[in-house]
Amino acid sequence: MSKAKIRMAMIGGGEGAFIGAIHRIAARLDGMIELVAGAFSSDTNKCKATGELLGLDSSRCYDSYLTLFAEEAKLPAEERVDFVAIVTPNHLHFPVAKMALEHGFHVLSDKPATLSLVEAQQLQEIITKQGLLYGLTHTYTGYPMVKEAKQRIKAGELGCIRKVIVEYTQGWLAQSEDESSKQASWRLDTSKSGISCCMGDIGVHAANLAEYVSGLEITQLCADLNHVVDGRSLDDDGTVLLRFNNGSKGVLLASQVAIGDENNLRLRIYGDKASLEWSQLEPNSLWLRAHNQAAILLRAGVGVLHTDTQNALRTPAGHPEGYLEAFANIYSNFAKQIHAFKQGDSATNQEFDVPGIKEAVRGMAFIEHVVASSERDTKWHSLQIG
Amino acid sequence: MSKAKIRMAMIGGGEGAFIGAIHRIAARLDGMIELVAGAFSSDTNKCKATGELLGLDSSRCYDSYLTLFAEEAKLPAEERVDFVAIVTPNHLHFPVAKMALEHGFHVLSDKPATLSLVEAQQLQEIITKQGLLYGLTHTYTGYPMVKEAKQRIKAGELGCIRKVIVEYTQGWLAQSEDESSKQASWRLDTSKSGISCCMGDIGVHAANLAEYVSGLEITQLCADLNHVVDGRSLDDDGTVLLRFNNGSKGVLLASQVAIGDENNLRLRIYGDKASLEWSQLEPNSLWLRAHNQAAILLRAGVGVLHTDTQNALRTPAGHPEGYLEAFANIYSNFAKQIHAFKQGDSATNQEFDVPGIKEAVRGMAFIEHVVASSERDTKWHSLQIG
Amino acid sequence: MSKAKIRMAMIGGGEGAFIGAIHRIAARLDGMIELVAGAFSSDTNKCKATGELLGLDSSRCYDSYLTLFAEEAKLPAEERVDFVAIVTPNHLHFPVAKMALEHGFHVLSDKPATLSLVEAQQLQEIITKQGLLYGLTHTYTGYPMVKEAKQRIKAGELGCIRKVIVEYTQGWLAQSEDESSKQASWRLDTSKSGISCCMGDIGVHAANLAEYVSGLEITQLCADLNHVVDGRSLDDDGTVLLRFNNGSKGVLLASQVAIGDENNLRLRIYGDKASLEWSQLEPNSLWLRAHNQAAILLRAGVGVLHTDTQNALRTPAGHPEGYLEAFANIYSNFAKQIHAFKQGDSATNQEFDVPGIKEAVRGMAFIEHVVASSERDTKWHSLQIG
Amino acid sequence: MSKAKIRMAMIGGGEGAFIGAIHRIAARLDGMIELVAGAFSSDTNKCKATGELLGLDSSRCYDSYLTLFAEEAKLPAEERVDFVAIVTPNHLHFPVAKMALEHGFHVLSDKPATLSLVEAQQLQEIITKQGLLYGLTHTYTGYPMVKEAKQRIKAGELGCIRKVIVEYTQGWLAQSEDESSKQASWRLDTSKSGISCCMGDIGVHAANLAEYVSGLEITQLCADLNHVVDGRSLDDDGTVLLRFNNGSKGVLLASQVAIGDENNLRLRIYGDKASLEWSQLEPNSLWLRAHNQAAILLRAGVGVLHTDTQNALRTPAGHPEGYLEAFANIYSNFAKQIHAFKQGDSATNQEFDVPGIKEAVRGMAFIEHVVASSERDTKWHSLQIG
Repeated sequence: MSKAKIRMAMIGGGEGAFIGAIHRIAARLDGMIELVAGAFSSDTNKCKATGELLGLDSSRCYDSYLTLFAEEAKLPAEERVDFVAIVTPNHLHFPVAKMALEHGFHVLSDKPATLSLVEAQQLQEIITKQGLLYGLTHTYTGYPMVKEAKQRIKAGELGCIRKVIVEYTQGWLAQSEDESSKQASWRLDTSKSGISCCMGDIGVHAANLAEYVSGLEITQLCADLNHVVDGRSLDDDGTVLLRFNNGSKGVLLASQVAIGDENNLRLRIYGDKASLEWSQLEPNSLWLRAHNQAAILLRAGVGVLHTDTQNALRTPAGHPEGYLEAFANIYSNFAKQIHAFKQGDSATNQEFDVPGIKEAVRGMAFIEHVVASSERDTKWHSLQIG
Repeated sequence: MSKAKIRMAMIGGGEGAFIGAIHRIAARLDGMIELVAGAFSSDTNKCKATGELLGLDSSRCYDSYLTLFAEEAKLPAEERVDFVAIVTPNHLHFPVAKMALEHGFHVLSDKPATLSLVEAQQLQEIITKQGLLYGLTHTYTGYPMVKEAKQRIKAGELGCIRKVIVEYTQGWLAQSEDESSKQASWRLDTSKSGISCCMGDIGVHAANLAEYVSGLEITQLCADLNHVVDGRSLDDDGTVLLRFNNGSKGVLLASQVAIGDENNLRLRIYGDKASLEWSQLEPNSLWLRAHNQAAILLRAGVGVLHTDTQNALRTPAGHPEGYLEAFANIYSNFAKQIHAFKQGDSATNQEFDVPGIKEAVRGMAFIEHVVASSERDTKWHSLQIG
Repeated sequence: MSKAKIRMAMIGGGEGAFIGAIHRIAARLDGMIELVAGAFSSDTNKCKATGELLGLDSSRCYDSYLTLFAEEAKLPAEERVDFVAIVTPNHLHFPVAKMALEHGFHVLSDKPATLSLVEAQQLQEIITKQGLLYGLTHTYTGYPMVKEAKQRIKAGELGCIRKVIVEYTQGWLAQSEDESSKQASWRLDTSKSGISCCMGDIGVHAANLAEYVSGLEITQLCADLNHVVDGRSLDDDGTVLLRFNNGSKGVLLASQVAIGDENNLRLRIYGDKASLEWSQLEPNSLWLRAHNQAAILLRAGVGVLHTDTQNALRTPAGHPEGYLEAFANIYSNFAKQIHAFKQGDSATNQEFDVPGIKEAVRGMAFIEHVVASSERDTKWHSLQIG
Repeated sequence: MSKAKIRMAMIGGGEGAFIGAIHRIAARLDGMIELVAGAFSSDTNKCKATGELLGLDSSRCYDSYLTLFAEEAKLPAEERVDFVAIVTPNHLHFPVAKMALEHGFHVLSDKPATLSLVEAQQLQEIITKQGLLYGLTHTYTGYPMVKEAKQRIKAGELGCIRKVIVEYTQGWLAQSEDESSKQASWRLDTSKSGISCCMGDIGVHAANLAEYVSGLEITQLCADLNHVVDGRSLDDDGTVLLRFNNGSKGVLLASQVAIGDENNLRLRIYGDKASLEWSQLEPNSLWLRAHNQAAILLRAGVGVLHTDTQNALRTPAGHPEGYLEAFANIYSNFAKQIHAFKQGDSATNQEFDVPGIKEAVRGMAFIEHVVASSERDTKWHSLQIG
């Protein structure tokens, strides 16, 4: 067993849970992290079975996260887990993260961080108090060409940003029958999902991507949420007009009933010199278009790209990398951040390009204000985080 | 000279005017129309020069549209012009159309029909009173695959429509220096362009396309117009949230400062069974996507297409047709409508698939209500045509 | 009637003939040419009917091309036709062109120019002897971005050319049942089509495009022709290895049984500095890729393009132009060439960018040598024009 | 340590070696394989450093593959490596594989399997004699939509296959300066790379892909290899005309001097009913086009796909998977094959969809006959494996 590997425990992610398997691949991909413990399911047998399948020592497959934290905390430092990956349904993200931090473990949580802005702010306090690391898997920021876009904007290639259009449309919840899947059922249940389905699940990814790449912050919004399929208590579609802190404007479109659409996340940013366009369905491409000039297609691995972009790639030009690699970039950056932390270095999320509690708080604020705006007759609504 | 050809006069469109040349190609393309008279410019020499270049009889190159209508009206029926094509800047569309109709000529006008809703409604009254034909060049409805989309929706292939996303982004006015061109200067001048630049020039095309294809009508809207480039008195960018008469929702994005974009008109319509996507930049393609099924790419000329689509095509599969052909479809349909009219047949715009005064009135209403909505603090605004 | 317009007669192209209608649109589109006479069909009634439909003076609808040439030659110079457009099946191209030239008319012929290389060389002699103009509608060279490609290569942007890949695949003859159409039946009939179907019909377009853009000439080839569908006496598919006069190599793929393909003409040229790629199905785009640099997408109307490209465009960026406009570019350039000729100017095909007898001879040589090569066991075969 | 994991040793792949890192990610991705031993470099220090970086027990980092096999063979069955991954330059593939098999280890080798057909046939004998498993990383067959293509053809959706077009063009060796990289230098060195560079490195992938998907075998070929960049003793470009065992024809294009191209592997297969098209640069898409019908775009994760395709995917629709996942599919299938072997089950490569010695022999035969054909004046050359 390598001393060099960062040790991970996983909460949630028992057999049949889509996102748990994805997190495990992401953790595994670069060989920097080892899964050593887990509380994969509240069903003890299921938990053991998952652990066995994953080759875990059965003594480290716990039947609850409480036990896991308590028992792992007792292990010697060189054995116990370094961080906890949280892949439960939404309503457990906060309590699990809170307890993990209080037992001294770093946390990498699936998104959203909590069920409410208040919880996110409480989480922020705990993190600060404990002096531990916290990452949030806003996966799409892990794509190399997203990083290239961010750096090109930072370097001024677009000039002053004027407009941001971000879309995230899916069709998987387009029909009532789609609600029966495991993924769908809890997302449409307020007690597990929070106050929004579409905006909480994917709209917040779009908002995060827009802010990450543009370097701007949303300050005002005007939302129009819809409950398209009959009988849903949470939104399954919506549009949000945006204003950013530099005075520019934008639009965010999100839908889970855009029938026929796969996972259509697309970002366009227009400056006064040039524009950028990126689409998750063809993630290795980034369009750069200057005024009255031929369009430029930046491709992963081709030509001079920013160091961050290069570091986020594993293959040469023409070998498509995708979603799992983007996800792995979040994990591997977090592992590097933990290494630095262990060596006593300053290790901020920003330095390691890991989405963290700041994004968590902004995300929850976005969701709450979008829902509030949608219910009001006045047009503009401030997104302020008190 | 063929008796079969429909005789056209053109008002505006002197040398250097982009849109006049386009209209002439469109009129010429199918060999159904002959340009026989013109008042191309208020500058007599320029008018004569244009007429000579076009091979017109110099006696039918008039130095004003007033003279043209007066003189042409005196000619025998088998010689005088059948219809007048209006390709002047916006502010002249209404007075020229009014006078043409009052002298007994059918009218095919560039868009927008008038400078205001009130004028459009006056025009509607004159048309009704005169019992003449009126067409409006909402060019994009002339594309074959747009017609296919319309017919597929009419036939119920999408089921009940839930959402419409229409975008029209251009970058040609992205910088202050862009204002010096002939095309730009009058569009940004309220006295010639009306109360809106971006929404009046292209937003209204997008709204028309959305209504044409979906078969729905916009009933409410919430607009956010921008004056992005300093010193502009008219909008150059904007977003409009939409509600349609079947309860579905939508978004309209329009911009003339979307730097790097060419003429990016794109329409997506989502029903409860399937969705359609069409983009003007690849106009011979139409995507049809049903729930949980492989996507279908309908292509001009391939497989079984609606009769309207087939009639709008001139070449077999794989021979790209474009903007000029779409434009010609409007002209040729209008020529057929005039033929029918001459034979005493009922000849409604709808029968001949020619955008007309109904679209003109709805377009002006759209523009006025978008501007009004943008100035208000309340979110939703009714688009009612009193 | 404008003195400025060039007068055209058409041989062939009666109702139901696809390519005749296309030629007429192309002739009409820019308003430089007027169709004044025709021998559209050997069936007198059909000929008259076509003429009437087209608004021709019935006295100039002739029941044979012999009569047309004889009668038109008697008319005063300012009335009689300037040039003859030949749109008959292949076997008539040569006799009609010969007779037209011998009666003093310029000729614009559909392709291939003749049924054999010998005929093409005879035609060349007649043209030289008569001192008249001859154009051949290699339509695809009329596309603006094809001209841009040619000029970029001429200017050295690709460096020394190393490899040319040209493909032209269609699926319209993929099944035996497809042979019943008017278009198909004569193409598969040796007496009307010549010694090759696929190579004669489309392979020769591909070869012409490769030579036109690259500025190179094919000097050797190794062909593999196929008769895929049972019972066909002519090839319906084939591949040809190429060697060019600068020592570079290439491949030409052509097929009419590539089931599902529309009209897939695509050209890739690789130099030692950069490469170009163009596809007829998206004709307004041209890819330019330099070594280890981001790809550049040149688009019709965007940025700095060669004068030839700009002159070949009628609309601003983002307004797709297509096949008919490319075709019209050949016609309009030929009309300009005739104007120059009338004014006594030197008026070579090259100056006016009109494919002519040189391309005709090379095309026939290509077809004959490809067929010969395919039948031999030795690999390389010289394409020499004695 | 999980008993469930398959234990792997790696030969080659020291720091800086591109392909070794790729193999390790592929082995790691699904958590079925554990790297436990290695002879990463003939430089002992480098080998140890790589082992340490990878978290290996230093006692299992060997300074030569001879030592590795000797020492590992002494370990108890439940500890010693199950299989050896070979990622050295080409000339070592055979000797290492031979020795590994002779010591009782299964082998998963980078491609090509050997330097010559004779060696490949010797290897085949050793495998048979030892009764062990052998896999060859023809990575591109690992893509889910490639498997879908194969299964659709097997099910008869294309009808009888008539034509196969396969291309593999890259630009990375386009200039002399490109030869200095580690990857380039040995590939252009006959002693390490074999008798062909371009065909041996990528042409053979293309041939394998064509045979894998079509289910056909190449029986005859006519090759034209080029040495484009001055001074190269091995081919860097070439085209091969193909004949298959069902009488159909094809073309294979390969180039490493196609400047500007990334890793452009593309396959088109035409039957008498429909055609398929797949491109590695957009690997999650597969086009299916039937005669005179709208095109169908099959996408990873969307609609009804073959079980093999579904098993090869890890994420739902719209989450792009790429090259590393395709590679991992080969590794994971090989791990499953080893599991079955251990349990005494029949475990053929075909059952587990793992490219093996049959493909290795065919690949070496392809390379040798292509080189031989290219040097001959006769056109067709039989690809027979004696």
